[in-house]
Amino acid sequence: MKIKNRLLNFKDMYIFQDSDWFNFSLDSVLLANFVTISASDKKIIDFGTGNAPVPMLLTIRTNNLIYAIEIQKEIYDLAVSSVDINNLNDKVHLINDDIKNIFSYFQQESFDVITCNPPYFKVEEKAIINENEIKAMARHEIGITLEEIIRISSKLLKNGGHLCMVHRTSRFVEILSLMKKYNIEPKRIRFVFSHDDKDSNIFLIEGYKNGKSGLKILSPLFVHDKDGNYLEEIRDYFGGGIDVAK
Amino acid sequence: MKIKNRLLNFKDMYIFQDSDWFNFSLDSVLLANFVTISASDKKIIDFGTGNAPVPMLLTIRTNNLIYAIEIQKEIYDLAVSSVDINNLNDKVHLINDDIKNIFSYFQQESFDVITCNPPYFKVEEKAIINENEIKAMARHEIGITLEEIIRISSKLLKNGGHLCMVHRTSRFVEILSLMKKYNIEPKRIRFVFSHDDKDSNIFLIEGYKNGKSGLKILSPLFVHDKDGNYLEEIRDYFGGGIDVAK
Repeated sequence: MKIKNRLLNFKDMYIFQDSDWFNFSLDSVLLANFVTISASDKKIIDFGTGNAPVPMLLTIRTNNLIYAIEIQKEIYDLAVSSVDINNLNDKVHLINDDIKNIFSYFQQESFDVITCNPPYFKVEEKAIINENEIKAMARHEIGITLEEIIRISSKLLKNGGHLCMVHRTSRFVEILSLMKKYNIEPKRIRFVFSHDDKDSNIFLIEGYKNGKSGLKILSPLFVHDKDGNYLEEIRDYFGGGIDVAK
Repeated sequence: MKIKNRLLNFKDMYIFQDSDWFNFSLDSVLLANFVTISASDKKIIDFGTGNAPVPMLLTIRTNNLIYAIEIQKEIYDLAVSSVDINNLNDKVHLINDDIKNIFSYFQQESFDVITCNPPYFKVEEKAIINENEIKAMARHEIGITLEEIIRISSKLLKNGGHLCMVHRTSRFVEILSLMKKYNIEPKRIRFVFSHDDKDSNIFLIEGYKNGKSGLKILSPLFVHDKDGNYLEEIRDYFGGGIDVAK
Protein backbone atom coordinates (compact mmCIF):
# COMPACT_ATOMS: atom_id res chain seq x y z
CA MET A 1 0.00 0.00 0.00
CA LYS A 2 1.34 3.39 -1.03
CA ILE A 3 1.63 5.79 1.88
CA LYS A 4 3.01 9.29 2.35
CA ASN A 5 5.43 9.69 5.27
CA ARG A 6 7.08 12.72 6.70
CA LEU A 7 10.83 12.48 6.01
CA LEU A 8 12.02 15.46 8.01
CA ASN A 9 10.65 17.30 10.99
CA PHE A 10 12.55 20.55 10.65
CA LYS A 11 11.06 21.30 7.29
CA ASP A 12 8.23 19.96 5.20
CA MET A 13 9.71 17.03 3.34
CA TYR A 14 7.67 13.96 2.55
CA ILE A 15 8.46 10.58 1.04
CA PHE A 16 6.20 8.01 -0.57
CA GLN A 17 6.65 4.43 0.52
CA ASP A 18 4.97 1.16 -0.23
CA SER A 19 4.94 -1.13 2.73
CA ASP A 20 4.68 -4.19 0.46
CA TRP A 21 7.72 -3.22 -1.57
CA PHE A 22 10.00 -0.64 -0.26
CA ASN A 23 10.51 1.50 2.81
CA PHE A 24 13.46 3.85 2.98
CA SER A 25 15.73 2.97 5.87
CA LEU A 26 17.75 4.82 8.45
CA ASP A 27 20.85 3.73 6.50
CA SER A 28 19.98 6.11 3.67
CA VAL A 29 19.61 8.97 6.13
CA LEU A 30 23.02 8.18 7.63
CA LEU A 31 24.55 8.06 4.15
CA ALA A 32 23.09 11.43 3.14
CA ASN A 33 24.50 13.00 6.31
CA PHE A 34 27.91 11.28 6.12
CA VAL A 35 28.95 11.99 2.52
CA THR A 36 31.35 14.85 1.95
CA ILE A 37 29.72 17.52 -0.27
CA SER A 38 31.48 20.76 -1.05
CA ALA A 39 30.48 23.62 -3.32
CA SER A 40 32.95 22.38 -5.94
CA ASP A 41 31.15 19.02 -6.16
CA LYS A 42 29.10 19.90 -9.21
CA LYS A 43 28.07 16.49 -10.48
CA ILE A 44 26.48 14.17 -7.95
CA ILE A 45 24.56 10.93 -8.45
CA ASP A 46 22.86 8.40 -6.18
CA PHE A 47 23.03 4.81 -7.43
CA GLY A 48 20.03 2.58 -6.68
CA THR A 49 18.13 5.46 -5.19
CA GLY A 50 14.95 3.61 -4.17
CA ASN A 51 12.21 6.09 -3.31
CA ALA A 52 14.86 8.85 -3.38
CA PRO A 53 15.60 9.66 0.28
CA VAL A 54 19.30 10.31 -0.40
CA PRO A 55 18.99 12.81 -3.27
CA MET A 56 16.11 14.60 -1.53
CA LEU A 57 18.12 14.97 1.68
CA LEU A 58 21.17 16.10 -0.31
CA THR A 59 19.19 19.03 -1.72
CA ILE A 60 19.50 20.53 1.75
CA ARG A 61 23.30 20.33 1.55
CA THR A 62 23.97 21.57 -1.97
CA ASN A 63 22.43 23.77 -4.62
CA ASN A 64 23.76 21.63 -7.44
CA LEU A 65 21.52 19.26 -9.38
CA ILE A 66 21.49 15.71 -8.03
CA TYR A 67 21.04 12.76 -10.36
CA ALA A 68 19.60 9.48 -9.12
CA ILE A 69 19.07 6.15 -10.86
CA GLU A 70 16.68 3.34 -9.94
CA ILE A 71 16.09 0.23 -12.04
CA GLN A 72 12.70 -0.90 -10.69
CA LYS A 73 9.76 0.93 -12.27
CA GLU A 74 7.46 0.53 -9.26
CA ILE A 75 10.04 2.05 -6.89
CA TYR A 76 11.06 4.70 -9.40
CA ASP A 77 7.41 5.76 -9.49
CA LEU A 78 7.47 6.27 -5.73
CA ALA A 79 10.62 8.38 -6.18
CA VAL A 80 8.91 10.50 -8.84
CA SER A 81 5.94 11.15 -6.54
CA SER A 82 8.26 11.98 -3.65
CA VAL A 83 10.37 14.43 -5.63
CA ASP A 84 7.25 15.98 -7.09
CA ILE A 85 5.36 16.57 -3.86
CA ASN A 86 8.40 18.32 -2.39
CA ASN A 87 8.77 20.56 -5.46
CA LEU A 88 12.27 19.25 -6.03
CA ASN A 89 11.97 18.59 -9.77
CA ASP A 90 14.54 21.26 -10.58
CA LYS A 91 16.98 19.84 -8.00
CA VAL A 92 16.66 16.05 -8.37
CA HIS A 93 16.84 14.37 -11.76
CA LEU A 94 15.58 10.79 -11.68
CA ILE A 95 16.51 8.08 -14.19
CA ASN A 96 14.65 4.77 -14.49
CA ASP A 97 17.32 2.41 -15.72
CA ASP A 98 19.99 -0.12 -14.81
CA ILE A 99 23.20 1.29 -13.31
CA LYS A 100 25.00 -0.78 -15.93
CA ASN A 101 23.56 1.54 -18.61
CA ILE A 102 24.89 4.69 -16.92
CA PHE A 103 27.30 5.44 -19.77
CA SER A 104 24.33 5.86 -22.12
CA TYR A 105 23.58 8.99 -20.09
CA PHE A 106 26.96 10.28 -18.93
CA GLN A 107 30.58 10.25 -20.03
CA GLN A 108 33.28 8.33 -18.20
CA GLU A 109 35.21 10.30 -15.55
CA SER A 110 32.52 12.98 -15.38
CA PHE A 111 31.22 12.83 -11.75
CA ASP A 112 32.47 14.33 -8.50
CA VAL A 113 30.37 12.33 -6.05
CA ILE A 114 28.55 8.99 -6.11
CA THR A 115 26.44 7.83 -3.20
CA CYS A 116 25.07 4.30 -2.93
CA ASN A 117 23.06 2.24 -0.47
CA PRO A 118 23.31 -1.02 -2.41
CA PRO A 119 21.55 -4.36 -1.97
CA TYR A 120 23.15 -5.82 1.17
CA PHE A 121 22.88 -9.54 0.58
CA LYS A 122 24.56 -11.95 -1.76
CA VAL A 123 22.15 -14.12 -3.69
CA GLU A 124 21.23 -17.20 -1.74
CA GLU A 125 18.02 -18.86 -2.82
CA LYS A 126 16.99 -19.77 0.68
CA ALA A 127 17.10 -16.20 1.92
CA ILE A 128 14.90 -14.67 -0.77
CA ILE A 129 12.31 -17.36 -1.27
CA ASN A 130 9.81 -15.62 0.98
CA GLU A 131 10.17 -12.19 -0.50
CA ASN A 132 8.33 -10.65 -3.40
CA GLU A 133 10.39 -9.85 -6.48
CA ILE A 134 10.58 -6.08 -6.02
CA LYS A 135 11.66 -6.29 -2.40
CA ALA A 136 14.13 -9.08 -3.16
CA MET A 137 15.85 -7.04 -5.86
CA ALA A 138 16.31 -4.07 -3.52
CA ARG A 139 17.82 -6.27 -0.83
CA HIS A 140 19.76 -8.93 -2.75
CA GLU A 141 22.40 -8.73 -5.46
CA ILE A 142 20.07 -10.07 -8.10
CA GLY A 143 20.40 -7.27 -10.67
CA ILE A 144 23.89 -6.07 -9.82
CA THR A 145 26.76 -7.14 -7.59
CA LEU A 146 28.84 -5.05 -5.22
CA GLU A 147 31.86 -5.50 -7.49
CA GLU A 148 29.94 -4.22 -10.50
CA ILE A 149 28.78 -1.14 -8.58
CA ILE A 150 32.32 -0.30 -7.49
CA ARG A 151 33.79 -0.98 -10.94
CA ILE A 152 31.21 1.26 -12.64
CA SER A 153 31.63 3.94 -9.95
CA SER A 154 35.37 4.07 -10.55
CA LYS A 155 34.79 4.51 -14.27
CA LEU A 156 32.20 7.27 -13.75
CA LEU A 157 34.21 9.25 -11.19
CA LYS A 158 36.62 12.02 -12.14
CA ASN A 159 40.13 11.70 -10.85
CA GLY A 160 39.84 12.71 -7.17
CA GLY A 161 36.07 12.22 -7.11
CA HIS A 162 34.57 10.14 -4.32
CA LEU A 163 32.27 7.19 -3.78
CA CYS A 164 30.34 7.03 -0.52
CA MET A 165 28.51 3.87 0.56
CA VAL A 166 26.68 2.36 3.47
CA HIS A 167 26.86 -1.40 3.89
CA ARG A 168 26.80 -4.28 6.34
CA THR A 169 29.93 -4.56 8.49
CA SER A 170 30.17 -8.26 7.72
CA ARG A 171 31.16 -7.27 4.18
CA PHE A 172 33.67 -4.64 5.28
CA VAL A 173 36.87 -6.45 4.25
CA GLU A 174 35.38 -7.30 0.85
CA ILE A 175 34.48 -3.65 0.20
CA LEU A 176 37.94 -2.42 1.15
CA SER A 177 39.50 -4.97 -1.23
CA LEU A 178 37.15 -4.03 -4.08
CA MET A 179 37.75 -0.31 -3.61
CA LYS A 180 41.50 -0.93 -3.71
CA LYS A 181 41.09 -3.11 -6.80
CA TYR A 182 39.33 -0.31 -8.67
CA ASN A 183 41.67 2.47 -7.44
CA ILE A 184 39.27 4.02 -4.98
CA GLU A 185 41.28 4.77 -1.84
CA PRO A 186 39.27 4.46 1.42
CA LYS A 187 39.73 7.70 3.37
CA ARG A 188 36.85 8.06 5.86
CA ILE A 189 35.06 5.25 7.66
CA ARG A 190 32.46 5.41 10.41
CA PHE A 191 31.15 2.30 12.09
CA VAL A 192 27.54 2.33 13.24
CA PHE A 193 26.47 0.46 16.37
CA SER A 194 22.86 -0.24 17.16
CA HIS A 195 23.80 -0.09 20.86
CA ASP A 196 27.07 0.86 22.55
CA ASP A 197 27.80 -2.64 23.81
CA LYS A 198 27.11 -4.48 20.54
CA ASP A 199 29.24 -5.27 17.48
CA SER A 200 28.87 -2.88 14.58
CA ASN A 201 26.10 -3.88 12.15
CA ILE A 202 26.61 -1.31 9.41
CA PHE A 203 29.28 1.17 8.38
CA LEU A 204 29.77 4.23 6.22
CA ILE A 205 32.75 4.52 3.89
CA GLU A 206 34.07 7.18 1.55
CA GLY A 207 36.85 6.53 -0.94
CA TYR A 208 38.60 8.80 -3.41
CA LYS A 209 39.53 7.77 -6.94
CA ASN A 210 43.33 7.59 -7.17
CA GLY A 211 43.53 9.15 -3.68
CA LYS A 212 46.61 8.97 -1.50
CA SER A 213 46.49 6.44 1.33
CA GLY A 214 45.66 7.71 4.83
CA LEU A 215 42.53 6.37 6.40
CA LYS A 216 40.52 7.94 9.20
CA ILE A 217 38.23 5.89 11.41
CA LEU A 218 35.82 8.50 12.70
CA SER A 219 34.19 8.44 16.11
CA PRO A 220 31.61 5.64 16.28
CA LEU A 221 27.94 6.34 15.68
CA PHE A 222 25.53 4.84 18.21
CA VAL A 223 21.90 4.62 17.16
CA HIS A 224 19.81 3.64 20.21
CA ASP A 225 20.00 4.19 23.92
CA LYS A 226 19.31 1.38 26.41
CA ASP A 227 15.56 1.94 26.08
CA GLY A 228 15.63 1.65 22.29
CA ASN A 229 15.15 5.38 21.65
CA TYR A 230 17.18 7.19 19.04
CA LEU A 231 20.21 9.03 20.41
CA GLU A 232 20.66 12.74 19.87
CA GLU A 233 22.77 12.60 16.71
CA ILE A 234 20.17 10.44 14.97
CA ARG A 235 17.28 12.61 16.16
CA ASP A 236 19.16 15.63 14.80
CA TYR A 237 19.25 14.05 11.35
CA PHE A 238 15.47 14.12 11.33
CA GLY A 239 15.19 17.44 13.09
CA GLY A 240 13.59 15.92 16.15
CA GLY A 241 12.92 12.33 15.30
CA ILE A 242 10.29 10.52 13.27
CA ASP A 243 9.43 6.90 12.73
CA VAL A 244 11.54 5.34 10.04
CA ALA A 245 11.63 1.75 8.89
CA LYS A 246 14.01 -0.19 11.11
CA MET B 1 67.45 5.40 34.52
CA LYS B 2 66.13 1.98 35.48
CA ILE B 3 63.05 2.18 37.64
CA LYS B 4 60.61 -0.34 39.09
CA ASN B 5 56.94 0.42 38.46
CA ARG B 6 53.82 -1.28 39.67
CA LEU B 7 52.11 -2.92 36.67
CA LEU B 8 48.90 -4.03 38.33
CA ASN B 9 46.98 -2.84 41.33
CA PHE B 10 44.89 -5.89 42.02
CA LYS B 11 47.89 -8.06 42.60
CA ASP B 12 51.58 -7.51 43.13
CA MET B 13 53.04 -7.30 39.68
CA TYR B 14 55.95 -5.04 38.87
CA ILE B 15 57.75 -4.02 35.72
CA PHE B 16 61.20 -2.55 35.18
CA GLN B 17 61.44 0.39 32.83
CA ASP B 18 64.18 2.70 31.70
CA SER B 19 62.92 6.17 31.03
CA ASP B 20 65.78 6.81 28.59
CA TRP B 21 65.01 3.74 26.53
CA PHE B 22 61.76 2.06 26.95
CA ASN B 23 58.51 2.43 28.86
CA PHE B 24 55.77 -0.07 28.33
CA SER B 25 52.65 1.55 26.96
CA LEU B 26 48.93 1.31 27.45
CA ASP B 27 48.81 -0.34 24.01
CA SER B 28 50.47 -3.48 25.41
CA VAL B 29 47.93 -3.66 28.20
CA LEU B 30 45.08 -3.38 25.70
CA LEU B 31 46.66 -6.12 23.58
CA ALA B 32 47.04 -8.49 26.52
CA ASN B 33 43.39 -8.01 27.42
CA PHE B 34 42.06 -8.21 23.84
CA VAL B 35 43.72 -11.38 22.57
CA THR B 36 41.62 -14.55 22.59
CA ILE B 37 43.24 -17.16 24.85
CA SER B 38 41.54 -20.47 25.49
CA ALA B 39 42.72 -23.50 27.42
CA SER B 40 43.50 -25.26 24.16
CA ASP B 41 45.97 -22.53 23.18
CA LYS B 42 49.06 -24.37 24.36
CA LYS B 43 51.82 -22.54 22.51
CA ILE B 44 51.83 -18.77 22.82
CA ILE B 45 54.52 -16.24 21.93
CA ASP B 46 54.86 -12.46 22.12
CA PHE B 47 56.92 -10.94 19.29
CA GLY B 48 59.06 -7.91 20.19
CA THR B 49 58.11 -8.16 23.83
CA GLY B 50 59.99 -5.11 25.14
CA ASN B 51 60.15 -5.23 28.93
CA ALA B 52 57.60 -8.05 28.85
CA PRO B 53 54.26 -6.49 29.86
CA VAL B 54 52.25 -8.68 27.48
CA PRO B 55 53.57 -12.12 28.53
CA MET B 56 53.43 -11.16 32.21
CA LEU B 57 49.82 -10.03 31.92
CA LEU B 58 48.97 -13.17 29.95
CA THR B 59 50.13 -15.34 32.87
CA ILE B 60 46.94 -14.18 34.59
CA ARG B 61 44.84 -15.55 31.73
CA THR B 62 46.49 -18.92 31.07
CA ASN B 63 48.50 -21.55 32.86
CA ASN B 64 50.45 -22.43 29.73
CA LEU B 65 54.04 -21.32 29.25
CA ILE B 66 54.38 -18.05 27.32
CA TYR B 67 57.35 -17.44 25.07
CA ALA B 68 58.55 -13.92 24.30
CA ILE B 69 61.29 -12.65 22.04
CA GLU B 70 63.11 -9.30 22.13
CA ILE B 71 66.07 -8.36 19.95
CA GLN B 72 67.58 -5.52 21.99
CA LYS B 73 69.84 -6.72 24.80
CA GLU B 74 69.25 -3.66 27.02
CA ILE B 75 65.46 -4.04 26.84
CA TYR B 76 65.65 -7.83 27.15
CA ASP B 77 67.57 -7.28 30.42
CA LEU B 78 64.66 -5.20 31.73
CA ALA B 79 62.33 -8.03 30.75
CA VAL B 80 64.49 -10.58 32.59
CA SER B 81 64.45 -8.43 35.75
CA SER B 82 60.70 -7.94 35.44
CA VAL B 83 59.91 -11.62 35.00
CA ASP B 84 62.31 -12.49 37.81
CA ILE B 85 60.95 -10.10 40.43
CA ASN B 86 57.42 -11.41 39.82
CA ASN B 87 58.57 -15.05 40.18
CA LEU B 88 57.30 -15.79 36.69
CA ASN B 89 60.37 -17.68 35.44
CA ASP B 90 58.42 -20.92 35.14
CA LYS B 91 55.60 -19.16 33.20
CA VAL B 92 57.44 -16.78 30.86
CA HIS B 93 60.33 -17.92 28.70
CA LEU B 94 62.34 -15.01 27.28
CA ILE B 95 64.52 -15.19 24.17
CA ASN B 96 67.04 -12.50 23.25
CA ASP B 97 67.13 -12.67 19.47
CA ASP B 98 65.78 -11.34 16.20
CA ILE B 99 62.25 -12.47 15.27
CA LYS B 100 63.76 -13.45 11.91
CA ASN B 101 65.67 -16.22 13.70
CA ILE B 102 62.53 -17.70 15.28
CA PHE B 103 62.80 -20.92 13.27
CA SER B 104 66.13 -21.67 14.98
CA TYR B 105 64.03 -22.17 18.13
CA PHE B 106 60.70 -23.51 16.90
CA GLN B 107 59.27 -25.49 14.02
CA GLN B 108 57.02 -24.00 11.38
CA GLU B 109 53.27 -24.26 12.03
CA SER B 110 53.80 -24.98 15.72
CA PHE B 111 52.11 -22.07 17.55
CA ASP B 112 48.50 -21.40 18.56
CA VAL B 113 48.78 -17.71 19.39
CA ILE B 114 51.12 -14.86 18.50
CA THR B 115 50.78 -11.43 20.04
CA CYS B 116 52.69 -8.41 18.78
CA ASN B 117 52.92 -4.70 19.55
CA PRO B 118 55.31 -3.87 16.72
CA PRO B 119 57.27 -0.71 15.89
CA TYR B 120 54.61 1.73 14.71
CA PHE B 121 56.53 3.93 12.29
CA LYS B 122 58.02 3.41 8.88
CA VAL B 123 61.64 4.45 8.64
CA GLU B 124 61.93 8.13 7.81
CA GLU B 125 65.24 9.68 8.76
CA LYS B 126 63.70 12.95 9.87
CA ALA B 127 61.47 11.30 12.41
CA ILE B 128 64.14 9.32 14.20
CA ILE B 129 67.06 11.71 14.14
CA ASN B 130 66.39 12.93 17.66
CA GLU B 131 65.97 9.54 19.25
CA ASN B 132 68.60 7.28 20.71
CA GLU B 133 69.22 4.02 18.94
CA ILE B 134 67.44 1.73 21.39
CA LYS B 135 64.30 3.84 21.51
CA ALA B 136 64.32 4.31 17.73
CA MET B 137 64.44 0.56 17.09
CA ALA B 138 61.45 -0.06 19.36
CA ARG B 139 59.43 2.63 17.60
CA HIS B 140 60.57 2.46 13.97
CA GLU B 141 60.78 -0.37 11.48
CA ILE B 142 64.57 -0.38 11.52
CA GLY B 143 65.17 -4.03 12.39
CA ILE B 144 62.01 -5.55 10.95
CA THR B 145 59.06 -4.40 8.85
CA LEU B 146 55.38 -5.01 9.39
CA GLU B 147 55.29 -7.28 6.34
CA GLU B 148 58.14 -9.41 7.70
CA ILE B 149 56.37 -9.78 11.06
CA ILE B 150 53.14 -10.91 9.40
CA ARG B 151 54.93 -13.23 6.96
CA ILE B 152 56.89 -14.91 9.77
CA SER B 153 53.77 -15.09 11.96
CA SER B 154 51.86 -16.92 9.25
CA LYS B 155 54.69 -19.42 8.91
CA LEU B 156 54.90 -19.99 12.67
CA LEU B 157 51.16 -20.38 13.25
CA LYS B 158 49.38 -23.71 13.10
CA ASN B 159 46.43 -23.94 10.76
CA GLY B 160 43.65 -22.10 12.67
CA GLY B 161 46.09 -20.38 15.01
CA HIS B 162 45.78 -16.64 15.50
CA LEU B 163 47.86 -13.48 15.34
CA CYS B 164 46.80 -10.56 17.51
CA MET B 165 48.28 -7.10 17.05
CA VAL B 166 47.89 -3.53 18.18
CA HIS B 167 48.83 -0.80 15.71
CA ARG B 168 48.17 2.75 14.56
CA THR B 169 44.85 3.22 12.77
CA SER B 170 46.58 5.11 9.96
CA ARG B 171 48.11 1.77 8.94
CA PHE B 172 44.85 -0.18 9.18
CA VAL B 173 44.29 -0.80 5.45
CA GLU B 174 47.90 -1.90 5.01
CA ILE B 175 47.60 -4.44 7.84
CA LEU B 176 44.37 -5.89 6.46
CA SER B 177 46.01 -6.30 3.04
CA LEU B 178 49.12 -7.94 4.52
CA MET B 179 47.08 -10.34 6.64
CA LYS B 180 45.09 -11.34 3.55
CA LYS B 181 48.32 -11.73 1.56
CA TYR B 182 49.70 -14.19 4.11
CA ASN B 183 46.42 -16.08 4.62
CA ILE B 184 45.58 -14.65 8.01
CA GLU B 185 41.87 -13.85 7.96
CA PRO B 186 40.89 -10.81 10.07
CA LYS B 187 38.08 -11.85 12.42
CA ARG B 188 37.96 -9.44 15.37
CA ILE B 189 38.77 -5.74 15.31
CA ARG B 190 38.36 -3.13 17.99
CA PHE B 191 39.09 0.52 17.37
CA VAL B 192 40.48 2.56 20.25
CA PHE B 193 39.59 6.23 20.67
CA SER B 194 41.48 8.52 23.01
CA HIS B 195 38.24 10.48 23.44
CA ASP B 196 34.72 9.77 22.24
CA ASP B 197 34.65 12.68 19.78
CA LYS B 198 38.04 12.01 18.18
CA ASP B 199 39.16 9.78 15.30
CA SER B 200 40.60 6.43 16.30
CA ASN B 201 44.35 6.52 16.94
CA ILE B 202 45.06 2.82 17.49
CA PHE B 203 43.25 -0.46 16.93
CA LEU B 204 43.38 -4.09 17.96
CA ILE B 205 43.12 -6.87 15.40
CA GLU B 206 43.00 -10.65 15.56
CA GLY B 207 43.31 -12.83 12.49
CA TYR B 208 43.16 -16.60 12.03
CA LYS B 209 45.45 -18.54 9.73
CA ASN B 210 43.37 -19.93 6.86
CA GLY B 211 40.23 -18.80 8.70
CA LYS B 212 36.87 -18.36 7.02
CA SER B 213 35.85 -14.78 6.24
CA GLY B 214 33.44 -13.06 8.63
CA LEU B 215 34.72 -10.00 10.40
CA LYS B 216 33.40 -8.49 13.63
CA ILE B 217 33.96 -4.85 14.53
CA LEU B 218 33.58 -4.92 18.29
CA SER B 219 32.19 -2.06 20.36
CA PRO B 220 34.66 0.85 20.40
CA LEU B 221 37.08 1.31 23.27
CA PHE B 222 37.28 4.83 24.69
CA VAL B 223 40.32 5.62 26.84
CA HIS B 224 39.79 8.98 28.51
CA ASP B 225 36.84 10.98 29.77
CA LYS B 226 36.53 14.70 29.12
CA ASP B 227 38.84 15.48 32.05
CA GLY B 228 41.58 13.19 30.75
CA ASN B 229 40.99 10.45 33.34
CA TYR B 230 40.94 6.81 32.35
CA LEU B 231 37.48 5.39 31.79
CA GLU B 232 36.24 2.39 33.74
CA GLU B 233 37.25 -0.34 31.28
CA ILE B 234 40.85 0.93 31.21
CA ARG B 235 40.98 1.27 35.00
CA ASP B 236 39.71 -2.28 35.28
CA TYR B 237 42.65 -3.52 33.22
CA PHE B 238 44.95 -2.22 35.93
CA GLY B 239 42.68 -3.18 38.79
CA GLY B 240 42.03 0.40 39.78
CA GLY B 241 44.34 2.54 37.67
CA ILE B 242 48.00 3.39 37.80
CA ASP B 243 50.22 5.75 35.87
CA VAL B 244 51.42 4.27 32.65
CA ALA B 245 53.45 5.87 29.93
CA LYS B 246 51.16 7.76 27.61
